[in-house]
Amino acid sequence: MNELSKAVCEACRPDAPLLSQAEIKSHLQLLSGWEIIEEENIQKLQRTFATQNYSNTMTFVNEVAALAESENHHPLMVVDFRQVTVLWWSHKIKGLHKNDFIMASKTSDLMSRRDVK
Amino acid sequence: MNELSKAVCEACRPDAPLLSQAEIKSHLQLLSGWEIIEEENIQKLQRTFATQNYSNTMTFVNEVAALAESENHHPLMVVDFRQVTVLWWSHKIKGLHKNDFIMASKTSDLMSRRDVK
Repeated sequence: MNELSKAVCEACRPDAPLLSQAEIKSHLQLLSGWEIIEEENIQKLQRTFATQNYSNTMTFVNEVAALAESENHHPLMVVDFRQVTVLWWSHKIKGLHKNDFIMASKTSDLMSRRDVK
Repeated sequence: MNELSKAVCEACRPDAPLLSQAEIKSHLQLLSGWEIIEEENIQKLQRTFATQNYSNTMTFVNEVAALAESENHHPLMVVDFRQVTVLWWSHKIKGLHKNDFIMASKTSDLMSRRDVK
């Protein structure tokens, strides 16, 4: 478990600064399988997780949702038959906050614990 | 409840014919709020459902997933904080089958029963 997984989200204020590109690069090195995408000038963290069947898909989706509620920070999830794509970004600041990297790391941990490829 | 909601999906064979545009138009008239979109030459049925909170979002997502498992036909769901976009199409025939309209109608019924706007 890396340092991001041990952290907790702080309240994200609308005037919180976006992470710099150097900070993004640094945080991204702590994560496996995540990439930065940009949609309508908003940078987002994205990873697609493969599952073995639809039951595993929905278990994972519900675990991510429970994590989201516990931290009061919610992702976009694209739920397919045997894969789930998770996107994290901070709506209030229209881009990436350290919270998003914390949540991405915790999302990966959920899948790792379930031992689903 | 319309006639589509009363129907059950039949097994969709890879050689099953796509619905004609006239059939699509006819079926679509039985549905409220659904539209036809096209992605990479594949026609899909899409509707976005608004919810009141994340708990309602996840309840609806799980109900749609249970419906999908019961009919062995699975949608793509885009799960946001207070909205869920559901897309139905038939992978085997790369387009729309009557099954997709049946599932769309049943999806709408799930939301109607829950009385979530």
